[in-house]
Amino acid sequence: MSAARFVTVEGGEGVGKSTNLEFVRCLIEGRGFEVVVTREPGGTPAAERIRELLLAHGEETMPPIAELLLFFAARSLHVANVIRPALARGAWVVCDRFTDTTRAYQGSGRGLDAELIERLAAHVHPGLEPDLTLLLDAPAEIGGARALRRGTADRMEQEQREFHARVREGYLALAARWPERIVVIDAARPITDVQTAIVAAMARLWHGK
Amino acid sequence: MSAARFVTVEGGEGVGKSTNLEFVRCLIEGRGFEVVVTREPGGTPAAERIRELLLAHGEETMPPIAELLLFFAARSLHVANVIRPALARGAWVVCDRFTDTTRAYQGSGRGLDAELIERLAAHVHPGLEPDLTLLLDAPAEIGGARALRRGTADRMEQEQREFHARVREGYLALAARWPERIVVIDAARPITDVQTAIVAAMARLWHGK
Repeated sequence: MSAARFVTVEGGEGVGKSTNLEFVRCLIEGRGFEVVVTREPGGTPAAERIRELLLAHGEETMPPIAELLLFFAARSLHVANVIRPALARGAWVVCDRFTDTTRAYQGSGRGLDAELIERLAAHVHPGLEPDLTLLLDAPAEIGGARALRRGTADRMEQEQREFHARVREGYLALAARWPERIVVIDAARPITDVQTAIVAAMARLWHGK
Repeated sequence: MSAARFVTVEGGEGVGKSTNLEFVRCLIEGRGFEVVVTREPGGTPAAERIRELLLAHGEETMPPIAELLLFFAARSLHVANVIRPALARGAWVVCDRFTDTTRAYQGSGRGLDAELIERLAAHVHPGLEPDLTLLLDAPAEIGGARALRRGTADRMEQEQREFHARVREGYLALAARWPERIVVIDAARPITDVQTAIVAAMARLWHGK
């Protein structure tokens, strides 16, 4: 039986995903395992080109459904060319965002059909779910604080704040739905407390290795 | 009520789609209507970039599901940025391939879930179906004839021939399912006969205009 495990790191903007991804990499390498750290959308040349399209699509209207399909197309390439081959040779995979991001942002945030998202997930990565998801959770107050400093919150900022609040609620609902897989880490605390929580969450993965 | 109509031209490889698209354009312009001639996958800058990805994805594996999602993402951009705006201002739209291509190639040809394809179509272009689809039909014998000349048919050629035969059967099944919308044109006949058939098929679109 392979020792390989698939770990994803999730959360909203500015919750310290990059720093904590590196910490997770150190923990796994410290146990002597090969680890592949990757990200979504992207992770392969074609998927990175899809990422560029998602980030900058010029003057065109990008319908939310087109965005959703591009995210899943990039994920399919990533799973087929990077994630499954790495796991198959026994390497651990740590991924910055995966399908929970789509559930939280496109589903809860933009209101796209949750049933369609689950169906696409089942077609794009059948039988592949993370062994552990670290959900870095912090209040979505960045937009709000900025508006407060200016003494005003315009419509765009109000919408942004509401969007990020829906994303956060969406993430927490996922953690309630899959408590065995998703561990909520309070990312508003000092870094040493966050790292302590990550060490504890990772502990069960070493079991029997 | 707008005079605008949405016409698609479908069929396998080498059935004369380009020539007949131009003929359809002439017929519509001859009636004094503005016409936008466009194609799939593509038709907008971002959708053309998706087309490039579909045609050349380098050394990467492109899973059939990724291909399907990219086709529908490109279609969503095309519908939002070109097809619906043209129809809304009263222009006719003539499109080289649309969702019937996906049904025939990805569904019948590659065996992807037909129900998923219909669900994606409903999400990507709700309420938008062609007013008329000209299905240019001819036997899928090109690969077969080539193999015969060489006195052999290797596995790839055999698979190609079988694939194109499934695509053709898929198209004919669509015509049987939607006989009001899809007109089968025997494209193996001389061009004058094909044009006569197209003139006849287009006749009902002028009615009441």
